[in-house]
Parts: sequence; structure tokens; C-alpha cells
Amino acid sequence: MKIAILGFGTVGKGIYDIIERKDTKDTAQLEVAHIFIRKGKEKTLPIMIDDYEAILQDPSCSCIVEVMGGIEPAHRYIMKALTAGKHVVTANKAVVAAHYKEFMETAAANHVQFRFEASCAGGIPWIHSLLQAKRIDTIKEISGIFNGTSNYIIDQMVKKQLDFSVALKQAQDAGYAEADPSADIDGIDTANKAVISASLAFDIVCTRDFPINGIRHLQKRDLDHFLQMGYSLRLMMIARSKADRYACVVEPMLIEKNSLEANVPDNYNLASLTGDSSGTLKFYGQGAGSLPTGSAIIADLIAIAHGELRDEVTMMEKSFDPSLLSGDYILRQSDTYETYKDMDPMQMHALYHDVLAKDPSALLVRIGKRGE
Amino acid sequence: MKIAILGFGTVGKGIYDIIERKDTKDTAQLEVAHIFIRKGKEKTLPIMIDDYEAILQDPSCSCIVEVMGGIEPAHRYIMKALTAGKHVVTANKAVVAAHYKEFMETAAANHVQFRFEASCAGGIPWIHSLLQAKRIDTIKEISGIFNGTSNYIIDQMVKKQLDFSVALKQAQDAGYAEADPSADIDGIDTANKAVISASLAFDIVCTRDFPINGIRHLQKRDLDHFLQMGYSLRLMMIARSKADRYACVVEPMLIEKNSLEANVPDNYNLASLTGDSSGTLKFYGQGAGSLPTGSAIIADLIAIAHGELRDEVTMMEKSFDPSLLSGDYILRQSDTYETYKDMDPMQMHALYHDVLAKDPSALLVRIGKRGE
Repeated sequence: MKIAILGFGTVGKGIYDIIERKDTKDTAQLEVAHIFIRKGKEKTLPIMIDDYEAILQDPSCSCIVEVMGGIEPAHRYIMKALTAGKHVVTANKAVVAAHYKEFMETAAANHVQFRFEASCAGGIPWIHSLLQAKRIDTIKEISGIFNGTSNYIIDQMVKKQLDFSVALKQAQDAGYAEADPSADIDGIDTANKAVISASLAFDIVCTRDFPINGIRHLQKRDLDHFLQMGYSLRLMMIARSKADRYACVVEPMLIEKNSLEANVPDNYNLASLTGDSSGTLKFYGQGAGSLPTGSAIIADLIAIAHGELRDEVTMMEKSFDPSLLSGDYILRQSDTYETYKDMDPMQMHALYHDVLAKDPSALLVRIGKRGE
Repeated sequence: MKIAILGFGTVGKGIYDIIERKDTKDTAQLEVAHIFIRKGKEKTLPIMIDDYEAILQDPSCSCIVEVMGGIEPAHRYIMKALTAGKHVVTANKAVVAAHYKEFMETAAANHVQFRFEASCAGGIPWIHSLLQAKRIDTIKEISGIFNGTSNYIIDQMVKKQLDFSVALKQAQDAGYAEADPSADIDGIDTANKAVISASLAFDIVCTRDFPINGIRHLQKRDLDHFLQMGYSLRLMMIARSKADRYACVVEPMLIEKNSLEANVPDNYNLASLTGDSSGTLKFYGQGAGSLPTGSAIIADLIAIAHGELRDEVTMMEKSFDPSLLSGDYILRQSDTYETYKDMDPMQMHALYHDVLAKDPSALLVRIGKRGE
């Protein structure tokens, strides 16, 4: 199967490397026909091209791999590819979270596949496992650590007793965090993955208007304080569904220190799902990086090359009911930690935002229950 | 798709329950046409039958689910089903490990499927994930905790400060361990799962003649001693492959106490695989039980009902080279702990068996390296 890669950054290069390596029978059947680069950039390989229309008009190229990142022009290029009758595989969580419904419907209308395994949890076969689990069970809950950068920062703060700003600087130096780290540390990246995961898990169109909170205000003393209470902290996503309702949050969460989540090191991810029959299943691996994310793209490409169809995903109307995720919180303001019992997350976040106006360094964390 | 269930114990009932629940579109398409029970047993459901030939002669029943356990008559029944042109799905690790090659070849010759997701790691989609990973990578290593009973015993010994015999008794009372617990605590059950997993992972016919060692001689004082060294202990399987060689061991292993493995609680399982692109992926869930194991059987049944073919598995000749798993060991004999560096597992196990003749309570444990 001939493919075109849009974007030749870290992930694009990983995909190219895995295909060129021809390590398995399946990867050997893939061929990179075009690499789309911006006008004016140097063409370091003969297959590099800056004319997107020419790629779309190549009938031998049946699949577009979008790894440019960002919303536009990625959204426009994906839509053009789908309407031109090309399958699309992407690693771009921001664009999938923003245009999930449009992409799914356009792909279906044009009888092509739209796949995005690499958009959530990097090299972990999370999307695939979620769809497989849905064959057997109604998924009741999903949760997990979906942002490697935040996890790396928290892990370094604990292991090396660092302040947040020092750990963030180290993450930036190691290439794990961007110069502007907001998307990672404010929970936006995790929220995009939550939107995608919850939409699939619960057969809905989840949008990003749920409570989102990151680790920007986390201090070393907070981790020490929570550890004395027997807790570790992780930036987590949780989403639940019950009949025609659902809820979702992204929050720093206190978890038992001998839980699997608390022992996820460095920039790894861990994703969980719970169904009535299978119980709770957890999936661990590299949440980012050239080859791991590349391998998730390759998994989608091989499935398309094999002619494997995605299980049908519906988009039902379910109402957002944050009370499904009511729980206990700890709020630090003016150097004191206060516990709030059985709070609706929307109300708790509203209260927190009021507090931030008075104490801009205030921190809100959720107390995880067993199984969260 | 109409199926027959052979054996109506814990797992058989779980399969029946999930199908009757009709929780998803896919499970609603399955129908239990027959439940095969032994002659003389009471027929509590109208679909119960004690005539196996009658099941084989029912053309509407296309798939046999074998959950009787044990080698015979399970082996005979599976062979009859495959040669009669019926798909076979089984949870029976002992019979798959003993007759892997025969089953795979007979299924291929009769153009039917032979599936055994439930034979390894219960509700964890381990076999499926392994085959998916092989599409992208040559698998270099697999490892994990595949016996929930042993894990429960070790976990209870640590958490409740129990002696081995007390923890074993509790596991038996809780229904996790058999009256004769040898298969679990001597590593035989783990070894069967290692045979199946290594055969698939490395495209070989792995047999059970590799070093196998269980937790029968584990004492509370051992766990205390190892904890002082910074280690937790788990009963693990490790298998490696390099070019045309492979190795496999089942051993109690010392692992860092903040590793994922060290934090696997109760009777859960955790299975790992490592490939060049994906890196290390880990899969966690219930390794046994009515519904979890039932859900793995259901996953196979749905795949067959969808007409999904298994990726081709070859059976190459690779030589067994235990030096691929050379490592460090600790041997406790006559109340002293001695470390052995960089030992070939075959030689180390031979030495251990000599020591056991003198000190029947002697214990051998492997020291895990990072990533093992």
C-alpha cells in the first residue's frame, strides 16, 4: 500500500524509519510514495513534494498520514483527503478532538477509513483495545495517565526532590516539554485525549467543556504533604457513563502509592478501561516519541492494508452529568490544605477559580477512590 | 453464530452468562446451541447433552468452546472438532501447551480457526496484543506474571505478614488455589502459558523443557531479607529470542519495589512484550475468574463470527540457548543467602537441585535486571 506522509518531524521520521526497516512481512508491504513538506523547505529526499493537490491526484496513493500537528491546515488537509477517497491516519489529538464528528461522518460518507490510534497514549494500542473491549462489554469507565510530560515532571519532582520550575526546565531540556508547556501542564493535551477516548468508549461526541485542571500550581511541599497522607499524585483523566449520561474530568489526582498508576515512571502512559465482564484492564507503554508513536500509525496502516474495517462507532446523545464523578477534593490556599467531601466537579472547579483570584498559587487535587 | 460449550464449570458458566446478557450487538449474535456434560450428570438446561458426536453432526453449530481443562479427553475432543470442520476456542492452557503444533496444523488443514486467547492471562487481551505487535516488530522479549494464585499468596505474605502455608491455605479458602496447588506454586501453570506465549511471539514450537521453578520454598523471612535489599518478589516468566536462538525460564524473581510488576496486587496478572519500535508494552488485568476468562473466550468467538482470520503464525526451528537469559541469582541454603553472578539458568537450576538434596527447604531466586 502506497502512502503519503504530511509532516516530517519526530513522528513522521519514525514512521518512515519503521517502514524502511522492513522488519516484518506487514511493514514490508507499506511504501512511502510522498512526503509532503512546506513550500520553500529543502527537499532532502526525492519523494518530498510541496504540492498537496498532486498527492491527492495520485491514484496509486490510497492513504494519507497526517503528522503535522495543530488544527489548521491539518483539518483542511484531512478533509480534502477523505473527500478525495483516501484513507486518513493521524497522530494529531488536537485536530481529532476538535473535529471528531466531521471526520467520522466524512470518512463514512466517502467509504474510507479514518484512524487515529497514535492520537492517544502513543505506542500503547489503546484505541484498538477500547474498541475490542466494546465488542464484549458496555464500557462503564475509562481513566489514565495520558500526558508523558506531566508525568515526567511529577516523577522528577518526587525522585530528585525538585521544585516544579526546575523539573519543568529539565523536561524542556530533555525534549519532553515544549518551550510553551501550557498544553501539557494545564491538562489540555490530556483533555484532547479524553475527548477522543470518551467519544469512542461511550458512543458519544464528547466535547472539551468538562472540568480541566493541570499541575501548573503543584509544589514540592504539596507532594511531601500528600505522601505523608499515603498518597502519590498523577495528572489523570477519568470518564464515566451510566445509561444516557456521562461525565469527564482532567485533574491532578491523589492515588494510593502502591497503585499501578503511582508507579508509572518517567514519561510513560497508563490507560484503563472497566467493563462488566472483563473487569478493569490497564495498558502501559510509551506515550510519545518517534518510534512508539510511529508504531501506532503503522498499526493503523497495516489494518487498512489488510482491509480490516473498524467496528461501527455510533454518536448518541448523552447528557453531561458531572455528578457521576462527584468525589472528595483537597484545596490548598494560603498555605492550608482543606478537604471538601463529595463535591460535584463542576462546582468544585468553580469554587477553585474564585479562590485563584485571591491566591493565584492555590492548588486543587482530587482524592482518588480505589479503582479510580 | 451457534456454539457448543464443552464443560460447564466456572468458565463455562461465565461464557453462558455473558452471551445470555446480550450486552452488546456482537454478544447478541452468539447463541449457545449445546452444552456438553458428562454422561450421568443432571441436565439442568434443555440445551445440555451428553452425546459429543451429535454436537459434531449438527451442521448449524460451527464452533466448539472447550473449557473442560486437563489434557484428555480435551485433546481428543478438540481434534475431533477441528477435523469435523468446526472452529475451536479454548481456555485450556495445559492442552494447548502440550499439543500446540498438532492443533495449529490440524486447524490449518481443515480451514478452520483454533483460538486460545483465554488460555493465557485470563481477561487480558494478551494473545491478541502479541499478534498485533508482531505485525510491526520482531518481538525480542516477553515476560510477566501469569499465575494469579502465586501472586495472591506472595501479596498476602507481604501485606499481612503471613507464612507461606497460611497464605496458601487462605488462597485455597478463597477459591484461588486448588486442593493440590502444585501446578500453581511450582510454576507449571506459568510454564504452560510461557510455552504458548513464546511459541506465538517467536514463531517457534516451544516445549516445556526449560528451567522451571516455583514459590513452594518461599518463606516470610526471605521476603523480609529481599525487601531490605530494596526488592519485591514475583513469580515471573521471561523468554527472549535473538536470531535463530531462544530461551525461556519460569522463576521467582526479585524486582525493584517501585516497578509495575511489584505492585500487581491480589490474583491479577501483568504481561509484557518488547519490540524495537513500540518499546515495552504492559497489559494488566484479571488472570482468572468466570467472567474475565469468559470475556476472552467471547473475544475469540466474536472474531470468528466476524470472519476475522488470525495472522499467519509460522513454526521455525530455533535452538534453545539458555545463555540468552544468563543472570544473577540468590540461593538460600542452610540459612545463608549466597549470590551467584552471571549464571546460565540451566547450570544454576542443576546446582540448585543438588543443593535441594541436602537442604530440602533451599530457595533459588533470580535477580531481575531493569527491564526484566
